[in-house]
Amino acid sequence: MPELRKDPIIGRWVIISTERGQRPSDWSGEKNDKSGGFCPFCPGNEDKTPPEIFSFRQKSTEPNSSGWDLRVVSNKFPALQIEGELKRRGKGVYDLMNGIGAHEVIIESPDHYREFNDYTIDQIEMILLAYQSRILDLKKDSRFKYILIFKNQGRAAGASLEHSHSQLIATPIVPKNVLEELAGAKRHFDIKERCIFCDIIRQENESDERVVALTENYISITPFAARFPYEVWILPRSHSSHFENLDRQKYRELAGLMKDILSRLSKALDAPPYNFIIHSAPIQNGDMEEYHWHIEIIPKLTKVAGFEWGSGFYINPTPPETACAHLRKVSF
Amino acid sequence: MPELRKDPIIGRWVIISTERGQRPSDWSGEKNDKSGGFCPFCPGNEDKTPPEIFSFRQKSTEPNSSGWDLRVVSNKFPALQIEGELKRRGKGVYDLMNGIGAHEVIIESPDHYREFNDYTIDQIEMILLAYQSRILDLKKDSRFKYILIFKNQGRAAGASLEHSHSQLIATPIVPKNVLEELAGAKRHFDIKERCIFCDIIRQENESDERVVALTENYISITPFAARFPYEVWILPRSHSSHFENLDRQKYRELAGLMKDILSRLSKALDAPPYNFIIHSAPIQNGDMEEYHWHIEIIPKLTKVAGFEWGSGFYINPTPPETACAHLRKVSF
Repeated sequence: MPELRKDPIIGRWVIISTERGQRPSDWSGEKNDKSGGFCPFCPGNEDKTPPEIFSFRQKSTEPNSSGWDLRVVSNKFPALQIEGELKRRGKGVYDLMNGIGAHEVIIESPDHYREFNDYTIDQIEMILLAYQSRILDLKKDSRFKYILIFKNQGRAAGASLEHSHSQLIATPIVPKNVLEELAGAKRHFDIKERCIFCDIIRQENESDERVVALTENYISITPFAARFPYEVWILPRSHSSHFENLDRQKYRELAGLMKDILSRLSKALDAPPYNFIIHSAPIQNGDMEEYHWHIEIIPKLTKVAGFEWGSGFYINPTPPETACAHLRKVSF
Repeated sequence: MPELRKDPIIGRWVIISTERGQRPSDWSGEKNDKSGGFCPFCPGNEDKTPPEIFSFRQKSTEPNSSGWDLRVVSNKFPALQIEGELKRRGKGVYDLMNGIGAHEVIIESPDHYREFNDYTIDQIEMILLAYQSRILDLKKDSRFKYILIFKNQGRAAGASLEHSHSQLIATPIVPKNVLEELAGAKRHFDIKERCIFCDIIRQENESDERVVALTENYISITPFAARFPYEVWILPRSHSSHFENLDRQKYRELAGLMKDILSRLSKALDAPPYNFIIHSAPIQNGDMEEYHWHIEIIPKLTKVAGFEWGSGFYINPTPPETACAHLRKVSF
């Protein structure tokens, strides 16, 4: 059983996988994940993944057979375990609980070689609807406090399988960065009675120097205090705290904008590795006046990892205004 | 002039290098830093670095000539600029100030090929004394609130030059992770009237399952809620808040322990890239009852960067107890 352990100084929860403890030899040098051409996510290999939890598939095809457009399965090597009780406990100065949670993989397309920005808008819409559906289902489990949806594109961004996929982790705690955003947003709301994200959107719209793209309901910006070169955020222009509560048309519009932004990044930076992460309010909270869901897209261009991890101190060599100007100029 | 910009939501300060804004082409693919054999840090090339700020050198040799054992110079491409005023200001919802600070490089040895764990204890002691001396000097400048000392070993850990060196950044703000540690430590002290780090040391000493090495005045542990496989901390066993206030004998003892720990990591993990970061109290504060300086050593073994950066959520596949057992067993 994995464990969730709390850092006693700063209060950050960490998952410790107590079962698959790597030995030193496993870490030596680069891992080689060339699977000799075999891909468990390709059509025909459905029996090589855990059973299907959700799918979009052609009529009259059976679950766990071919004929699908998108599949969601449990991660074969889950970081957290779905069965069991939390059993929160202390151990002297330390706090821990069982590593209970869900860890799912969204296999975004049957096509092994297609990347996210190359999908049709229909396909991206389908992916977003799958995210929504999984959140609405897992939300019913009161053990879970947060659902994290993210994508690692490319090995340097943490992807271990080539076939394009995203991941979902449902956790019994709210991750540290989300807690910080919630606390910061609340501080602003307490003083101003306005959402800080709404304030940012208003100011960015006026100044226009960091707006990459604007649609009817969304704005995409390079954030003022970006940690990374070419970091891009997508936010709904009207206040909304939960990603999973959109109507269908809004997912479709978001799909179009995601395709646009990811294509710009791909073209401007020569198909960089990247991560995107959906930041949404905790699932058990009702609508929140002070929090605003958004997507953060982080191309992985610099190699300054450990120091930043250790200090929380970021040096960004590309001003967001410069990144924005370049991204705007990309032509298709 | 670089800018320090504050994230309006979570309050994190970031350095934006507004002068050397990379163009997209600079980021495409891996950077190649093979310098064709030329190294600005090697003896004989003293005129290829900014002038010496500090050195240990043989008697009757001139500054900026050969004959040195260690040199400290300004970073040729500093993230922050030493001259000027802070000029804190607002811009609507955003806060910023001038990027004032010091960014220095400690050239640890004249030997191009020797790595930190291969130095003699004398040499490591000299490096630690150089850190101390630079902190004591920069501390006099009241514009600076914090001094960050760190080492990137290996390209994957962010080193851009092969010749072994460490870095110092003096900043007009306290970095986010330090603020969090200070806040967490204060919370504990307010309730318990004890230092949280002292409590951790006491408990680790008793349980012994995460103690890698113990000397008269230091303890080295794999932390209970380690974010990374084989993360190791070194802490003084007696309460002490500022790294720069040790007496000479304590630096020497620390040098011996650092050599021991870094050699164990090197042997166990096949000379991995790593970072170490000295966590010390803010320089303008007097002795602090609640904070305890320490060194965090983070081998760079996993590639899960962007997601963790984005969420603050870490999955550690190697329990610290397993890492500790392996590190203890290393024989020389």
